[in-house]
Amino acid sequence: MVYKYINEHAETFIQDLVRLVRQPSISAKGEGIAECARLVEEMMQEAGLSTKILMGEVGNPVIYGEVWSKNSEKTLLFYDHYDVQPPEPLEKWDYEPFGGKIVNGRIYGRGVTDNKGNFVSRLKAVQAFLETIGDVPVNIKFFVDGEEEIGSPNLAPIVEAYRHILVADAAIWEFGGTDRKGRPHLYLGLKGVLSVEFKAKAAKKDVHSANAPLIPNPAWRLVWALNTLKDEYERILIEGFYDNIVPPSAEETEFLRRIPFEEKELKEELGLKQFLKGVSGFEALKTWLYQPTCTINGLFAGYTGKGSKTVLPHEAVAKLDFRLVPNQKSDEIFDKLVRHLKRRGFGDLEIIRHGSTEPTKTSVSDPFVSLVAKTAEKIYGEKAVIYPLSAGSGPMYLFRNFFGYPIVSAGCGHPESNTHAPNENLKIESFITGTKFIATLISDFVNAHA
Amino acid sequence: MVYKYINEHAETFIQDLVRLVRQPSISAKGEGIAECARLVEEMMQEAGLSTKILMGEVGNPVIYGEVWSKNSEKTLLFYDHYDVQPPEPLEKWDYEPFGGKIVNGRIYGRGVTDNKGNFVSRLKAVQAFLETIGDVPVNIKFFVDGEEEIGSPNLAPIVEAYRHILVADAAIWEFGGTDRKGRPHLYLGLKGVLSVEFKAKAAKKDVHSANAPLIPNPAWRLVWALNTLKDEYERILIEGFYDNIVPPSAEETEFLRRIPFEEKELKEELGLKQFLKGVSGFEALKTWLYQPTCTINGLFAGYTGKGSKTVLPHEAVAKLDFRLVPNQKSDEIFDKLVRHLKRRGFGDLEIIRHGSTEPTKTSVSDPFVSLVAKTAEKIYGEKAVIYPLSAGSGPMYLFRNFFGYPIVSAGCGHPESNTHAPNENLKIESFITGTKFIATLISDFVNAHA
Repeated sequence: MVYKYINEHAETFIQDLVRLVRQPSISAKGEGIAECARLVEEMMQEAGLSTKILMGEVGNPVIYGEVWSKNSEKTLLFYDHYDVQPPEPLEKWDYEPFGGKIVNGRIYGRGVTDNKGNFVSRLKAVQAFLETIGDVPVNIKFFVDGEEEIGSPNLAPIVEAYRHILVADAAIWEFGGTDRKGRPHLYLGLKGVLSVEFKAKAAKKDVHSANAPLIPNPAWRLVWALNTLKDEYERILIEGFYDNIVPPSAEETEFLRRIPFEEKELKEELGLKQFLKGVSGFEALKTWLYQPTCTINGLFAGYTGKGSKTVLPHEAVAKLDFRLVPNQKSDEIFDKLVRHLKRRGFGDLEIIRHGSTEPTKTSVSDPFVSLVAKTAEKIYGEKAVIYPLSAGSGPMYLFRNFFGYPIVSAGCGHPESNTHAPNENLKIESFITGTKFIATLISDFVNAHA
Repeated sequence: MVYKYINEHAETFIQDLVRLVRQPSISAKGEGIAECARLVEEMMQEAGLSTKILMGEVGNPVIYGEVWSKNSEKTLLFYDHYDVQPPEPLEKWDYEPFGGKIVNGRIYGRGVTDNKGNFVSRLKAVQAFLETIGDVPVNIKFFVDGEEEIGSPNLAPIVEAYRHILVADAAIWEFGGTDRKGRPHLYLGLKGVLSVEFKAKAAKKDVHSANAPLIPNPAWRLVWALNTLKDEYERILIEGFYDNIVPPSAEETEFLRRIPFEEKELKEELGLKQFLKGVSGFEALKTWLYQPTCTINGLFAGYTGKGSKTVLPHEAVAKLDFRLVPNQKSDEIFDKLVRHLKRRGFGDLEIIRHGSTEPTKTSVSDPFVSLVAKTAEKIYGEKAVIYPLSAGSGPMYLFRNFFGYPIVSAGCGHPESNTHAPNENLKIESFITGTKFIATLISDFVNAHA
């Protein structure tokens, strides 16, 4: 009955997703946030949920929605986010980033997979129950973040303040999907992330580069400072950076070994002959999931237009993120970074701390993990692939630390979704199947031990 | 009579300069070049010169103009250029870069000093003779380059092809001006410049920075490559970079010692406590004029907007220029640079060579130098300051190498002209006095030994 409803209403589900995609919501720039928050609340209400705006002292609102089951005491919480990454570089998009254009069975737009598509698929699964049986099999809670893409810097006080309403038995995290062979991938943990920005400054204004023998060049200062952070062998040189890291357990390693890592396909898609340092196979997979990183996200200084310009810039900027693995802590890493730069003579650099999150994971032996895996196998016809940790990040640690309930990330993405990149898209088929998967999971959760 | 004409027509001279400033002519981007070339030719014709377009097989046209004296065999050539630097960063301008707005006795606009103001002041000096005495004291030639700001990459074949019409007894180069105390500054030589661009590439597209453990980051490659070029002590590390450098002669050093280096004012203007490596006084001046450089003009990679974005860029670009001193050669330096990057393991970087010019100078003991200095003292009421070499660059070497005639650079700029930077401007008073200086120089040149 629920499947039938989903099939018959697929077209309106797609239109609702397109409507949400067309509303920009770029947290990094503060664009369209209030409008998108209103739209998310409206869509939840239209689906039959009662809603509440959770606000901290600063930051974007969290949209909370709930619907209580008439027959079950169990509660399943969905963590999603309505904010999206900036769409730049705009010239690399084939379609409008906020157009929601449908081409060859795919919806294109910034955020269509990450995370608006996943949010809508979950919302529609709940709506399908309410419209067909007039009830939900278990209590449902939605927690829709507005700052996930900037590291959820203001979420901790919100989760704490509203901890009484965020109680649940288990949670489904924002992302996930199938691989090229249609196998569903589930993720049990997240790395942490720490985003920072360096600003080097020198003279009050740009000058003619003829003055270079005398005038300090912040672009050079930036290059030299960055060079002290990581060497050509990809070793991060900040003192104590690798302290406290816990390698994968024997059990986790077992799960790791079962992951069919689509190495060849990934290399082909990216046009790469080999991965960094030539790692491949199990080694590449383990590196991907368990290695902390230091990444330059952006560089800017001086003249970047066509041709040349003999200018000496007076400012240079670098944006970086560090991915952290259990049990690194973002505060410690930031302190170590600041200390490192001072020690190496770069105390003149301005260091801005953007968002951060901590690494966390749910145990591979938790019964909820088996439940989600079984449901996924039923829907996708393929055994689920379980990642004890994922390479991504998010505020999952807040929920794990406050409530301790198991959290699994599962969604309707696919390998060519281009999340965080130009031409982000979602296959309509994945979106609809994903909706059925969530509906089934809600049913299966009623009698599960989890 | 000529001074009277200049005073009476100052307003129309200013209007003509504003007209030229309002015509963009950005050689780096190919913007407005043809239009500006036509305007320059028109203005020369309006002033009474006969003109000729000098074209090479590629590149922007040179506008040549001449007028023959009825009574003198002597010829003075003016080298100018109608192209300008890109106006970026646009947000740092208080007025439209191509608006030519007049505020508090200054004309604002990209190129108003460098070099449209100097060109117009010279043209108007010649016009003043033609309109008052119906003749010029000496033969006058104008050579107005269209690619000076990109290193005049196509000028050598033009100078060679038209060498029969470019013969002269001496030349005045494009730039110069007075210092804060009103002393005229003359320049007898130029450094060379070599502009290059590095492009680092990795994957076919930007990816989520969660993939950083596996995917090469071209921004890091660029940082590491740049770091091998110059160290924190400002030492350029390219093998053989400092070969062939000729230090200033005893005579040049004498001239250097007489230069009143406005160190305090320069530091104040730029908000600097000290120059690079703490040099000051004579040492700073010598460093400025005789030290070759390696300057980052621009850096670009990934996300450079507000806040953070967890992206791993697939391309990173750096723009650099090298300032060369006698007797470094741009071809040799470029070869050494390419070899250096290969040797250091950065053969994967794409290296684009933009324009280049060679260092050159006129002897401090040339009689033409004394003539220009005497004329300048007469007009400005202050002893001329003579630079045996300047920190700037240009295609002066082509004229010196082909014809051997002495060349002095003298013009109507001032220390707050902001050439190559936002809010470039020219004081109207400097512009008019500069016009009188050129008129006087043309008169004085008739009977000079030079």
